[in-house]
Amino acid sequence: MGTETRQRQADRSRETRRKLMEATVECLVELGWSGTTTTVVAERAGVSRGAQLHHFRTRGELVAAAVEHLGAESVQHLKERAARVNGSTVAVVELIADFYASDLFTAALELWVAARTDPDLKTVVVPLEVRLGRETHRLAVELLGADETKPGVREAVQITLDLVRGLALANQLTDDGKRRARIVRHWATMLEDAL
Amino acid sequence: MGTETRQRQADRSRETRRKLMEATVECLVELGWSGTTTTVVAERAGVSRGAQLHHFRTRGELVAAAVEHLGAESVQHLKERAARVNGSTVAVVELIADFYASDLFTAALELWVAARTDPDLKTVVVPLEVRLGRETHRLAVELLGADETKPGVREAVQITLDLVRGLALANQLTDDGKRRARIVRHWATMLEDAL
Repeated sequence: MGTETRQRQADRSRETRRKLMEATVECLVELGWSGTTTTVVAERAGVSRGAQLHHFRTRGELVAAAVEHLGAESVQHLKERAARVNGSTVAVVELIADFYASDLFTAALELWVAARTDPDLKTVVVPLEVRLGRETHRLAVELLGADETKPGVREAVQITLDLVRGLALANQLTDDGKRRARIVRHWATMLEDAL
Repeated sequence: MGTETRQRQADRSRETRRKLMEATVECLVELGWSGTTTTVVAERAGVSRGAQLHHFRTRGELVAAAVEHLGAESVQHLKERAARVNGSTVAVVELIADFYASDLFTAALELWVAARTDPDLKTVVVPLEVRLGRETHRLAVELLGADETKPGVREAVQITLDLVRGLALANQLTDDGKRRARIVRHWATMLEDAL
């Protein structure tokens, strides 16, 4: 098999994986965890069950990979947007709040809640939660230009992330965007003083 | 039928209702929404399916009533505990954070997440979310002795509630108690200045 053929196969394999993960996130957001079965995802992705099983052995593996993939994409997207804004604390906190109040949060929430009462799923999701949490904290420190050696700064960054998580949760059943914008702006002025 | 008999029947009816609601919360916490079927709840409560149907026509009605009942009990419990603490901002914020990081939050989270993708359930849950949100805000204002006519105070109270909601969510898969305690204490000092 020539190099070119191997390359084409690798591309196709990556493309199949990507399709499956994107269909999984769509299913989680539209149908919730209970509606996100491997059959529904394969159909929506236009991928055969055999090809799906080759990439992801279980539903838990598929959904965790999908949320991790979306997490990595969202982080990239957030970094690009952050590079374009003026870098004020308000602008950065708004970006982080938007990052949370997104499909990533909704999909992750479905997965987290399902994992709470499913021990097998939990073993997959807990390490993912730790990785996403660390990555988000590191990113927030970087975007805010926060010096964590100064007393109180590490806590202020953590408050920012816990607050936007709470705000994202309040946005699940109804559109809480107006209230969220007001709270985010108010917190940003407090955070600026703390930094 | 004498007054005493009617009284006994009313007591028994209330008791049946209470048993069903308490079994529902236990089921939500242990088994999640998908495991909280009316059959499982009736069995656990030791109540016949007929008696259950007399009190709650649908699963959604039962679960929403159970979460509302637990909410009212938790508010009462929080008020009693608040009356016993010294009333410092730190102590009050700690009580509010404990109020959130509890079975009430876990049960409500199961219900909220299920309602997101279930339109019938959503019509029951959205008004409940509004009532619980208002009640919790009013209670926080009272316990903190906050004067919401002062600029920034209303926002600071809301930040408190959104923050403890985010912290409660971080506590679902792993015990986040130590980190939560540190964040809560730090926020309480910032809140004290804001009030």
